[in-house]
Amino acid sequence: MKKVLLTGFEPFGGDDVNPALEASRKLTGWTQGEALVVTRAIPVVFGEAIATLAAAIEEEKPDAVISVGQAGGRAHISLERVAINVNDARMADNAGNRPEDQPIDPKGPVAYWSTLPIKAIVRALQESGIPAAVSNSAGTYVCNHLFYGLMHYLAKEGLSLPAGFIHIPLLPEQAAKKPGQPSMSLDLVVRALQLAIEITLR
Amino acid sequence: MKKVLLTGFEPFGGDDVNPALEASRKLTGWTQGEALVVTRAIPVVFGEAIATLAAAIEEEKPDAVISVGQAGGRAHISLERVAINVNDARMADNAGNRPEDQPIDPKGPVAYWSTLPIKAIVRALQESGIPAAVSNSAGTYVCNHLFYGLMHYLAKEGLSLPAGFIHIPLLPEQAAKKPGQPSMSLDLVVRALQLAIEITLR
Amino acid sequence: MKKVLLTGFEPFGGDDVNPALEASRKLTGWTQGEALVVTRAIPVVFGEAIATLAAAIEEEKPDAVISVGQAGGRAHISLERVAINVNDARMADNAGNRPEDQPIDPKGPVAYWSTLPIKAIVRALQESGIPAAVSNSAGTYVCNHLFYGLMHYLAKEGLSLPAGFIHIPLLPEQAAKKPGQPSMSLDLVVRALQLAIEITLR
Amino acid sequence: MKKVLLTGFEPFGGDDVNPALEASRKLTGWTQGEALVVTRAIPVVFGEAIATLAAAIEEEKPDAVISVGQAGGRAHISLERVAINVNDARMADNAGNRPEDQPIDPKGPVAYWSTLPIKAIVRALQESGIPAAVSNSAGTYVCNHLFYGLMHYLAKEGLSLPAGFIHIPLLPEQAAKKPGQPSMSLDLVVRALQLAIEITLR
Repeated sequence: MKKVLLTGFEPFGGDDVNPALEASRKLTGWTQGEALVVTRAIPVVFGEAIATLAAAIEEEKPDAVISVGQAGGRAHISLERVAINVNDARMADNAGNRPEDQPIDPKGPVAYWSTLPIKAIVRALQESGIPAAVSNSAGTYVCNHLFYGLMHYLAKEGLSLPAGFIHIPLLPEQAAKKPGQPSMSLDLVVRALQLAIEITLR
Repeated sequence: MKKVLLTGFEPFGGDDVNPALEASRKLTGWTQGEALVVTRAIPVVFGEAIATLAAAIEEEKPDAVISVGQAGGRAHISLERVAINVNDARMADNAGNRPEDQPIDPKGPVAYWSTLPIKAIVRALQESGIPAAVSNSAGTYVCNHLFYGLMHYLAKEGLSLPAGFIHIPLLPEQAAKKPGQPSMSLDLVVRALQLAIEITLR
Repeated sequence: MKKVLLTGFEPFGGDDVNPALEASRKLTGWTQGEALVVTRAIPVVFGEAIATLAAAIEEEKPDAVISVGQAGGRAHISLERVAINVNDARMADNAGNRPEDQPIDPKGPVAYWSTLPIKAIVRALQESGIPAAVSNSAGTYVCNHLFYGLMHYLAKEGLSLPAGFIHIPLLPEQAAKKPGQPSMSLDLVVRALQLAIEITLR
Repeated sequence: MKKVLLTGFEPFGGDDVNPALEASRKLTGWTQGEALVVTRAIPVVFGEAIATLAAAIEEEKPDAVISVGQAGGRAHISLERVAINVNDARMADNAGNRPEDQPIDPKGPVAYWSTLPIKAIVRALQESGIPAAVSNSAGTYVCNHLFYGLMHYLAKEGLSLPAGFIHIPLLPEQAAKKPGQPSMSLDLVVRALQLAIEITLR
């Protein structure tokens, strides 16, 4: 059995739901083939987000880590390619922090690659009828922050697990309040994450 | 019991599926409260589309008519407000016709309003968590053509039924082949059409 | 000499400039070949807009009328095809009016076509390197209101002039304050309107 | 006098013009305050692009380097923040190369930051009425390739010049052939680059 740690962010920015959290909850305890999924909710707070994830990795000792966040405005599942060493927030996080052009770790490298098989996952999703693409930017808000923190933690600890970040669209019920925004059903997001987990463990 | 005629277009433009047809098939025979749904597939062919719909109205004598078509690029359910008296196609229809700036009926008025309760339907959909909006243009291809033909036929026959046109997004499996395109699950589209039918008959 | 009445709306919606007004001012008194341009500023107020335009037509007795408005979000010159008989405002006009689903004239027809040679103008603009397209909706705010009012006035007065409405993008200085919005330089807009006038009088 | 090396890419992807090349040509020999601009045309070819730029730096010994490329679909001047060590092309370059997921330099770091004052430039542009924003991805085509190659070359040579990459929109004459695409006039792009040079040398 291989353990996959799947994380989802808490709601933020005025929303009372976050599809990343909803999807990860649906997958708590999911097993298939070799995979067992454990999950964590991650606060949308600079610093705390990384600390929560690092504690979960120490506790769970997973074989792979996939962090998931919401990307308003995107119509497809986005496999993030690269995390960059900067916090640059246009709006405050859930604790009121709004860093501008601050390094995540002043001693860290400029960027880390995702170590998930992102191209293979995109192909598998598309073949299963799920809109998906590689993304070259996870932004500079708490999503990129967590993604960078994840890869930096694994590097410092000398752990070579497959790990990375996936952005998902808004839920239809969120988009219903934001005219013109694309969305994706929770069922489809859950199927997409299941496929991503399977491809990652293969 | 009130009979609602629901129509969906056949696939076109290289797609092998049309969400409008899929959704209408799922609703064939659907009953709730006063509603009984009968459906027809409509060819994506100028002229034939209207003829097929007119024949169905004569045969079924419905209490309301809702025609549905696919709108690539739109992220929400679009309640069309107005049909205009022009065929102006950028690509050929399924019979190879590509009319430019031709009136649908040279003797017809410039435009017809939808007689569906479009604002009430949009509100009901949004309150149910389904992305929806009023649209002020159904384009100038076979969708607008059918919409105009429907309203013109009812006007000429002196029938005052609620009738109109609804555009729906691509299915996820279509969008999976068209990077960046928004989509909506068939389940949600079906729920949206059920709500539209209920509000229309209220 | 043929007189063309060119109108541009005053600023609205928090902007302190309107590219339609700026462009029309630049063209005041412009002559070329048969064309002489006279201009008017139009208030962004339901009702007053049409009254101002009707008074200008009576006074100037033009051979053609082209009304121009700003279309935030559009990247090209839009030749509007059709005006519809409805006022449906999402935000208040400059006098605080915010009509919803009101007819412009309860006795008027559903819609009027533009009588400008819209396809020929689009072709001429594109050939001159100016982004342009036909648009099938002028919206339901004061722009469509003025366009409908223009065509309805001419119809009631029995005047058969070429007349219609052109939407133009934001100016770069407006877009500089609205991240992601497309824009077009005033010089290019002025050239586009000159071409539209020439094609209209041909 | 401080010398600024400004580079612009040659046309590619079926276009017969590249706004980056046009703008850089207009600025050849431009001087203002301390600035003297020298320019180079860069081939849209993986490998050759970097070699051409490196040769120009050796020859010109500039005090700052700004490389410029065209970004179809973007409406504003994009100050690129970060270059990543990957070539991943969706279409062939001008020599027929189409690398997928190849490192630019297998021994290079994952990414480099721009050393241009990107936030100060964005503010200056916006204050001058020019649409501008920071971008967190220069893509994975020849633009990012050149940007990475530039920063990697400077790092290897131990040169600490301000250097980076700016993406600019299509010209109106290009957008006239690509319906819906935003554009920016060459004059405005030239003014934007002049301001970027001035802020960089300050």
